[in-house]
Amino acid sequence: MKGLRRLVLDVLKPHEPQTTVFALRLSEIKNVDGVNIHLSEIDQATESIKITILGDDLNYDEIKRVIEDLGGVIHSIDEVVAGKIIVESVRTEQD
Amino acid sequence: MKGLRRLVLDVLKPHEPQTTVFALRLSEIKNVDGVNIHLSEIDQATESIKITILGDDLNYDEIKRVIEDLGGVIHSIDEVVAGKIIVESVRTEQD
Amino acid sequence: MKGLRRLVLDVLKPHEPQTTVFALRLSEIKNVDGVNIHLSEIDQATESIKITILGDDLNYDEIKRVIEDLGGVIHSIDEVVAGKIIVESVRTEQD
Amino acid sequence: MKGLRRLVLDVLKPHEPQTTVFALRLSEIKNVDGVNIHLSEIDQATESIKITILGDDLNYDEIKRVIEDLGGVIHSIDEVVAGKIIVESVRTEQD
Amino acid sequence: MKGLRRLVLDVLKPHEPQTTVFALRLSEIKNVDGVNIHLSEIDQATESIKITILGDDLNYDEIKRVIEDLGGVIHSIDEVVAGKIIVESVRTEQD
Amino acid sequence: MKGLRRLVLDVLKPHEPQTTVFALRLSEIKNVDGVNIHLSEIDQATESIKITILGDDLNYDEIKRVIEDLGGVIHSIDEVVAGKIIVESVRTEQD
Amino acid sequence: MKGLRRLVLDVLKPHEPQTTVFALRLSEIKNVDGVNIHLSEIDQATESIKITILGDDLNYDEIKRVIEDLGGVIHSIDEVVAGKIIVESVRTEQD
Repeated sequence: MKGLRRLVLDVLKPHEPQTTVFALRLSEIKNVDGVNIHLSEIDQATESIKITILGDDLNYDEIKRVIEDLGGVIHSIDEVVAGKIIVESVRTEQD
Repeated sequence: MKGLRRLVLDVLKPHEPQTTVFALRLSEIKNVDGVNIHLSEIDQATESIKITILGDDLNYDEIKRVIEDLGGVIHSIDEVVAGKIIVESVRTEQD
Repeated sequence: MKGLRRLVLDVLKPHEPQTTVFALRLSEIKNVDGVNIHLSEIDQATESIKITILGDDLNYDEIKRVIEDLGGVIHSIDEVVAGKIIVESVRTEQD
Repeated sequence: MKGLRRLVLDVLKPHEPQTTVFALRLSEIKNVDGVNIHLSEIDQATESIKITILGDDLNYDEIKRVIEDLGGVIHSIDEVVAGKIIVESVRTEQD
Repeated sequence: MKGLRRLVLDVLKPHEPQTTVFALRLSEIKNVDGVNIHLSEIDQATESIKITILGDDLNYDEIKRVIEDLGGVIHSIDEVVAGKIIVESVRTEQD
Repeated sequence: MKGLRRLVLDVLKPHEPQTTVFALRLSEIKNVDGVNIHLSEIDQATESIKITILGDDLNYDEIKRVIEDLGGVIHSIDEVVAGKIIVESVRTEQD
Repeated sequence: MKGLRRLVLDVLKPHEPQTTVFALRLSEIKNVDGVNIHLSEIDQATESIKITILGDDLNYDEIKRVIEDLGGVIHSIDEVVAGKIIVESVRTEQD
């Protein structure tokens, strides 16, 4: 296991296609082991979703392409995990 | 294991049939391993419930059909998990 | 394991019989593995209790009958779990 | 394992005998496996304590008698667990 | 294993001897397996500390004597655990 | 295992290169087992990120050099773990 | 295993030497298994750090000497653990 292991993306999307379609398409990308899509906010025309992708040597550009093909826009990369071991963020007193 | 693995649905329903009926019917759908229904809010004529469905290669359209046959309306898909591994949403400082 | 697996009931009861009697009677119902009764609120004549019942293929109607025989009234079904696997409710940003 | 398995009691007691005496006496009752006494509030003449008793087929009347013999008064039964399996209370959105 | 198994004591002490001395002395008492001393508050002349002592058949009077020999005063016994099994306090809605 | 085992760094960086590049480069440094980069704050021109690096006998100077080569500035070292065992920070009442 | 097992120290230090140097030096002391240094507060000339040291039969005086040699001052001993078993502080309703 190496390279990108987990990505957390803040994405804006129209209501269609629905999140089940995003999750299925992303889960079919090579090296992706699992996908979680959380609804953050829902507006009249759009939805803010948080996408968590787990895998091995993830290809960020292909993930981005699939999201954009479905009409989504990546607003920010909220977390990136890379390397042999999945490292969790440590809570500090500066948080 | 593949496809849709967990769905969290925000649903509005009339008081009848009661949630035990919803849970039993949904648990009998093919590929569903378990169902949790949480009462979120109760009004004079309706109830807001949160349905969590766990399984393998879940069929969203059939789940939706069963909920609607029982008089429920899906307001939003609050979480979707897909793929070989069940991925939990990562808490970020943007949350 | 199948059918109803866990029920969380919001119940109003008079002070007598006391909750130990409710817990024992409910634990003796067929297919019930365990019962937890939590005191939520206590008033001059009544008590609000939260009853959690764990088992396999639970019979809701019999549970309801036992509660009513003891003078209790079910105000709401706060959670229902059904199926082969006990599924916990997932915390979402909509909660 | 059956019958009453865990009791949480809200008790008022004078300062003497001290809580170590309550804990030891209650732990020596038949079928009791362990006792936890937590100090909730301390006043000039009295103390509010929360007593958690774990065991198998607990005898509530004998537990009550021991507490009263030591000068304590049971204000409320805050939790009762009964049956083959120790069931924890489920946190719901109604809490 | 029996008798007193865990004690949590609220103690007031002068700055000297320091808490490392309290912890070492208490850990050398017969039947004591481990000691944790947490600083709660620090004043010009005194310190409030919380002492947690784990063991088997603990001798409260000897523990008290050691604390007093070192210049400490026990303000309250905040928790007592007794019996074969270490029972944790259960959080209730009355807390 | 010895030396520096985990570092948590508060870093300011321009938007480019993006955090996936930081995570990959840092994960390729000798002795690094894994890297987590969390987005703390996003401004018009810069991003505050928290970098957690796990490994064995980590070389702080090389890590710093890689971060600076990518245009990042280390604002503070929020946590350092060293030695044979990874020790977590203990929450105290002074926190 | 015996004697002092874990120490949590509140220390004030100048910016130099940096915390990585403190962690490495402390981790090299005899009987020390691991060290965690958490940044609590940062000022123009000084830093407040929380040092957690884990080991067996720790020598407090040597630890203090190393901290002072590096220019640090111990403000308080926030936690001490001693004995065969590492005992965690129990949260009580008095906290």
